[in-house]
Order: sequence, then C-alpha cells, then structure tokens
Amino acid sequence: MIGKTYEQISIGDCEVFSKTITETDIALFSAISGDFNPAHVNSEYAKKTKFKKRIAHGMISTSLISGVLGMKLPGPGTIYMSQTVRFTAPTYINDTLTAKVKVIEKLPKNRIKMETTCINQEGILILEGEALILAPIKQN
Amino acid sequence: MIGKTYEQISIGDCEVFSKTITETDIALFSAISGDFNPAHVNSEYAKKTKFKKRIAHGMISTSLISGVLGMKLPGPGTIYMSQTVRFTAPTYINDTLTAKVKVIEKLPKNRIKMETTCINQEGILILEGEALILAPIKQN
Amino acid sequence: MIGKTYEQISIGDCEVFSKTITETDIALFSAISGDFNPAHVNSEYAKKTKFKKRIAHGMISTSLISGVLGMKLPGPGTIYMSQTVRFTAPTYINDTLTAKVKVIEKLPKNRIKMETTCINQEGILILEGEALILAPIKQN
Amino acid sequence: MIGKTYEQISIGDCEVFSKTITETDIALFSAISGDFNPAHVNSEYAKKTKFKKRIAHGMISTSLISGVLGMKLPGPGTIYMSQTVRFTAPTYINDTLTAKVKVIEKLPKNRIKMETTCINQEGILILEGEALILAPIKQN
Repeated sequence: MIGKTYEQISIGDCEVFSKTITETDIALFSAISGDFNPAHVNSEYAKKTKFKKRIAHGMISTSLISGVLGMKLPGPGTIYMSQTVRFTAPTYINDTLTAKVKVIEKLPKNRIKMETTCINQEGILILEGEALILAPIKQN
Repeated sequence: MIGKTYEQISIGDCEVFSKTITETDIALFSAISGDFNPAHVNSEYAKKTKFKKRIAHGMISTSLISGVLGMKLPGPGTIYMSQTVRFTAPTYINDTLTAKVKVIEKLPKNRIKMETTCINQEGILILEGEALILAPIKQN
Repeated sequence: MIGKTYEQISIGDCEVFSKTITETDIALFSAISGDFNPAHVNSEYAKKTKFKKRIAHGMISTSLISGVLGMKLPGPGTIYMSQTVRFTAPTYINDTLTAKVKVIEKLPKNRIKMETTCINQEGILILEGEALILAPIKQN
Repeated sequence: MIGKTYEQISIGDCEVFSKTITETDIALFSAISGDFNPAHVNSEYAKKTKFKKRIAHGMISTSLISGVLGMKLPGPGTIYMSQTVRFTAPTYINDTLTAKVKVIEKLPKNRIKMETTCINQEGILILEGEALILAPIKQN
C-alpha cells in the first residue's frame, strides 16, 4: 500500500497516466469548483471564442498530475507540497491527455521535485510545471 | 455574460467563494483525476497517517480558486494562464473553505496577476499561491 | 415499456417513490443547476440561518415527483406539461422523502391532473402542488 | 456572501444564466430523481417518439431557474417559496438554455414575485412560469 520511498527514487524516473477528458469530467469538475465559466459549459458562447468550442477547465488536466503522483510515482503515501502549472494549449472534449511526472531533484528532508507535463493525443503540450512532494515513509 | 475587463479591474480588488468540501467532492475528484491515493479514499489507511483521517486532494481546494476566477473576478471570459500553489495545511471532510483572489499586478497584454489563497472555517491557511490570467475581452 | 394509458387511469389512483436525500444529491444538483447558494453548500453559513444546517435545493425534492410520474403513474411515455410547487418545510441531508402523485382530474385531450406532494420521514409536508401530464399513448 | 435585499431589488430587474444541457446532466438528474423515463434514457425508444431523439427531463431546465435565483437575483440567502412551470418545448441533448428571472412584483413580508423563463439557442421558449421567493436578509 506504500509507494516508492525517497531511497527508491532516482533522478530521471518517470511515470505517466492517460485518460480521455469527457463532458462528464467538465460537469463533475463544475460541481467541485463552482466554476461555470461559459468557456466550459456553454457551447453557443464557446463558438464565438478563439477556441471555437468548449474547453476543459485547466484544473482538470492538472488533476491528472495529481493522479500520477498519488498512484504511481511516488504513489500511495505521497504528500503534495506544491505545484506550479502553466497552461500552454486548450483541452477540448474527448481529447486524450497523457500526464507525465519526472524526477528532477532530490532535496533534503524527504522532498522530491518533479517536472510535470500533460500532452494531448497529437503530442501538443497542454500544461507544464513542477511539483514538490514528500515521498512516502515506510511505517514500522 | 462577460466578466470584468482589464480596464475595470484595479489593484487590490478581491472576491471570494466559500464551499464545504464533502466526501462527494473527493469521490468526484477521484473519478476525474484517477487519484485514489489512500490518504483520500481509504479510511483505515488514513487512521495511521499523521492526519488521523482522510484528507481532501489538494487540487480540490485549488479548484475553488478556479471557481472565483471564472465566476467572479474577472468572471466569464477569463483565460487561465498559470497557477502556483503551495499546500500549507490539510483539508478534512466537511471543512468549509473560502477561496480568495486579490489583484496584485496589472501586466501588459491584458494579463493580470492575482494572489490566491484558501482558508478553512478556523481561519487556517490551506493553500497560497499566484494566478496569472487574461482578462475577458468585450466582443463587438 | 409503456405506462398506463388515459383509459387505464382513474381518479384517486396514486403512487409513491421514496429516497434518502444525501450530500451527493446536493453536489450533483449543483452541477446541473449551477446553484451554489450557501444555504446548500456551505455548512458554516448554514449554521447561522434559521435552518441551522445545510438544506437541500427545493428542486431536488421536486425531482422525485418527476420520478414517480415518469416511472410509475402514468410511467414511461408520460409527457410533462406543467408543475406547480410550494415548498412548505426544509429538507435536510439524510432526510428520507416520499413523493406521492394522486390523480385528481381527467381532462380532455389525454391530459391528467395530479396532486403532488412530498413528505419526510416524520410525515412533515415538504412540498405540495399539482402536475399536468399527457398520458402515454400505445404505439401500434 | 449575501445577495440583494428586498430594498435593493426593483421591479423590472432581471438576470440570466446560460448552460449547455449535456448527456451528463441527464445521467446525474436520473440519479437524483429516479426518473428513468425512456424518453430521457433510452435512445431506441426515443427514436419512435414524436421528438425522434432523447429529451432532457423538464426539471433539468427548471433547475437553471434555481441557479439564477440562488446565485444572481436575489442571490445567496434567497429562500425559495414556490414555483410554477409550464413546459412549452423539448430540450435536446446539447441544446444551450438561457434561464431568465425578472422581478414582477414586490409583496409584503419580504416576498418577491419573479417571471421565470428558459429559452434555447434558437430563442424558442422551453419553459415559463413564476417563482415566489423570500429576499435575503442582512445579518447583524
């Protein structure tokens, strides 16, 4: 039930998680966040924007990063300390995103810095940033 | 349908959005993110952590920032460019969070920098960071 | 797959549907409606209201009426024409509501008028009103 | 956190909320209401109806009225007393509805009567009716 510990993690390690972002994700994220920005929930409005159609909330794609960190690298037991994220391209309904985390630095006190990115099915970078986490600790 | 434009926004402007974070938010966010870290979805595991009970995903509280930006300040039409977030305390199920965004800088090219925070019902800072957004543009 | 036709329905016929209203219903209804009124989604705010705790959206209890009409009386094939609803008491999280529809008038052109009510587990009337529906038509 | 009070509201005031009604809304509303009328959830059945395809539950469009009342006019603190609604045209999946509330009468005891309507992206009236609400009260 415990993911990789600080000692088991090396610089350059990486993991991915892929998922298609659907209309349902937008509806559920609106429920969580209260964010009904018409760019996300109004098709008629969206037609007139530069994106031409509805786009997913940026935090939906960011959430996939949370998924990789919490499930794969380091995995269960990880404590999320901070995240920076820069949105570089829109995510449309039914785009399939691949979130990737890559270890870039091992810091004192069990902390690990990750490069975090999301690309879509065409390889276009959707978001990039860095995460700082506390690695899982083995309980005796 | 359009929120505040660059010209209508002044340094110091702020807006808030408050919501109780429930078990349902955790279930919905898990569905979106694939993040089933036991700290969020496993009560037995959580009892043995330093938090003693399940905590909400950090990105749930961050999502409330998205809610204020998209609905209130600047509101509809806002484009999210980047976000930094540092998690400073855990959010437990049934905590009531208040997300706040405050304008701290007006940059060239329609960009606005916001200080973004979330506190719980006891006034404890849950997260802090900065958002960079593009203000809504009036369509003719 | 077809419910009761006009001919099969008599004045005085009634049907019920019961369900516990949970926190999840509130979250999902917020997603549908965009209604994040703090009376529904903010426990701290709710403590200071006359209700003392969060209450369900009125339209959640009304939705159970839709459930009885669409599933039981008349059932599949029903077309909803109109509804009046008066909210008479609050619904709290985990209250169990029983929605009841009762035929009170058979009108020309396949129309049927129903008395519609919802009571909670203590027998308190939560809402009352009337529905007008078109009865299902047998397809040949 | 408090919307407009009785004194701050004038006859003729109006507010709108727009949202695209998706398949997800139908699924979520079915979960809340138990209304699995095949007109809403069965595409094969729906092909043979006069509507030719699945239609949204009438109470989904009505819920947007709840959204405007609870979030915008009067906004947080509003208490919903009653609603009448007449369904005038079907809502299909991916239709974009605009719910509108307009103040038509200020009554004694803090009560306000609203005209409530929903139109789709083609301007077709989907529903019309009236809401009676209690305006928010400033807490000292």
